[in-house]
Amino acid sequence: MRYFPVMTENKIQKIDPPVPVVQWVGDADTGCLRLLDQTLLPLETSFMDCRTAEQVHDAIKRLVVRGAPAIGVAAAYGMILACREMEKPRAAEYLESARPTAVNLSWAVRRVMAEAENPGQMLDLAREIHAQDERMCMSIGHNAAGLLEKHCENGGVLTHCNAGALATAGIGTATAGMYVAHSRGLRFTVYCDETRPLLQGSRLTAWELQKAGIEAVVLTDSMAGALLVSGRVGMVIVGADRIAANGDAANKIGTYGLAVLASRHDVPFYVAAPQSTFDLSLSDGGGIPIEMREGDEITRGFGRQTAPDGIGTWSPAFDVTPAELITAIVTDLGILSPVNEQGVRDLITCDPRR
Amino acid sequence: MRYFPVMTENKIQKIDPPVPVVQWVGDADTGCLRLLDQTLLPLETSFMDCRTAEQVHDAIKRLVVRGAPAIGVAAAYGMILACREMEKPRAAEYLESARPTAVNLSWAVRRVMAEAENPGQMLDLAREIHAQDERMCMSIGHNAAGLLEKHCENGGVLTHCNAGALATAGIGTATAGMYVAHSRGLRFTVYCDETRPLLQGSRLTAWELQKAGIEAVVLTDSMAGALLVSGRVGMVIVGADRIAANGDAANKIGTYGLAVLASRHDVPFYVAAPQSTFDLSLSDGGGIPIEMREGDEITRGFGRQTAPDGIGTWSPAFDVTPAELITAIVTDLGILSPVNEQGVRDLITCDPRR
Repeated sequence: MRYFPVMTENKIQKIDPPVPVVQWVGDADTGCLRLLDQTLLPLETSFMDCRTAEQVHDAIKRLVVRGAPAIGVAAAYGMILACREMEKPRAAEYLESARPTAVNLSWAVRRVMAEAENPGQMLDLAREIHAQDERMCMSIGHNAAGLLEKHCENGGVLTHCNAGALATAGIGTATAGMYVAHSRGLRFTVYCDETRPLLQGSRLTAWELQKAGIEAVVLTDSMAGALLVSGRVGMVIVGADRIAANGDAANKIGTYGLAVLASRHDVPFYVAAPQSTFDLSLSDGGGIPIEMREGDEITRGFGRQTAPDGIGTWSPAFDVTPAELITAIVTDLGILSPVNEQGVRDLITCDPRR
Repeated sequence: MRYFPVMTENKIQKIDPPVPVVQWVGDADTGCLRLLDQTLLPLETSFMDCRTAEQVHDAIKRLVVRGAPAIGVAAAYGMILACREMEKPRAAEYLESARPTAVNLSWAVRRVMAEAENPGQMLDLAREIHAQDERMCMSIGHNAAGLLEKHCENGGVLTHCNAGALATAGIGTATAGMYVAHSRGLRFTVYCDETRPLLQGSRLTAWELQKAGIEAVVLTDSMAGALLVSGRVGMVIVGADRIAANGDAANKIGTYGLAVLASRHDVPFYVAAPQSTFDLSLSDGGGIPIEMREGDEITRGFGRQTAPDGIGTWSPAFDVTPAELITAIVTDLGILSPVNEQGVRDLITCDPRR
């Protein structure tokens, strides 16, 4: 297969995420930003109402809201609140400083600053950014659902980390196909790698799927090999943090090992990501910067010390899966396969919206 | 290479483990069994003195002492204590019931019951079982040290779980070559997979290596792929719980994935295990029974709940690495490579001690 145009957007029936991650409550002048507090998951479903710039800044910084698309939407609404207290440029700068490396955050804030004058216009624009994100998720979902129907009927799909509804304002990226296929009546089991060190798989992905009535099973990252041997997995699908011009994809640490295992077992390995994830300035994955994390996340992962004092650690947050191991990249524009430089260029340049 | 005879035992200089795991203190009539309490590692180095059958039973059951070889030695000494309170057959039966599936436990207890009449004879025999275990570790260590010298000088070796000194009465199996090579002056880094769900790598292997002055670095299991990509690893060495007649090896969950990754990166993958690990009644690894563990080890692994209530889990304790992915099996009898049925048969049948 090669990429193909998605269904036109008005034909796609909207599916709500299992829980609203980002909402605006009330009108532009007196309303507030309501965020699902993801720091309390999976034990507590609680919402936090932000009424000040500082509350929004703090919520983004503390990961109350996380995932690049969800942060972008939250920040767009956050601009309405921040501009109640300060000048637009100062408001933008302040919100951006909450997580300086999040591209969507900066993009959304700058857009609101440039295109909206008053609270009413800002709310309209934030709602449009929100709706765009929902449509992006739905498009990926429709494209990915067919793959689930092909490979996973009454079987299993394996995923890693949380590229889910909780990371977007819609139904997620890697999870989007699961929600769409489930709504069409397909029955399947989602195997969720717990995803050490921060356990986004067990804390977040398993939680949101369970909430939506989709069967979810948690395993440690080290169990994926045995799971593939067992024949329970029809396909693997994960998200991506950045994709180079040749299709090499950076994603949460452990993704590469999963791709190598899937390849050995002839199980298709899919990456789901919006067009905004492609970084054509990088010829291949070797140029993607990999953040190294603090060792405490490994040695004191969940409140208890589990390694000796003073031990060395090695903790990259991401790894790079080479294009050759990726069966296809499922985007909001269509499905790209085989994954290579020519395909990526064609996919991106043919986009009428770009 | 093919297997070759080990150095004769009297030529091997003994290396002490970094901490005594099992000791007998005092004489046969009034002495006691002193165990390192591994349940308190890595935070506390504390010893537990057992003076009654019940204390020995409890220590084995609670994993104060763990690892098949170490349990066997502890139970041999434990028979001296148990026979102070009850008849020999009752003592044997009682100790065996602490962990019914541990083969070494039953073997050691039965041997003491059959071959020793009085406390003095029992102590002599327990010391002999202890010394045998130490020699087994030293033989594996001498065989494996050469591989470290070949592949890891000023570089790294990757291991999984704890097939270490803490699991034996000597210097371990997978770790034995590290202790021997280190004593010869080789400098290298041991990368320890933390080994979810029970974290034997970060809690135990990192601890014992640090104690011995060997540089140890902890990473999550999911980081092994990126570590291999980085070029830091010259070889992988792990233990085994059971090895079939064709060389397929069962070991802690995650080992198989590691072997697949090592193969992709042309990094040699070694299994270190004594001859007692081979089970020639099984033609291949498909016949090795795999224990499934409780989901709580995944969902409440660190003392805090990290997955939603009622979520499904899938938790095999072991996986099987096919012989084709094993560069060599390092045993106390020599090094077996290539790993196949003929080689296993030759190795085992040529053993003069068998």
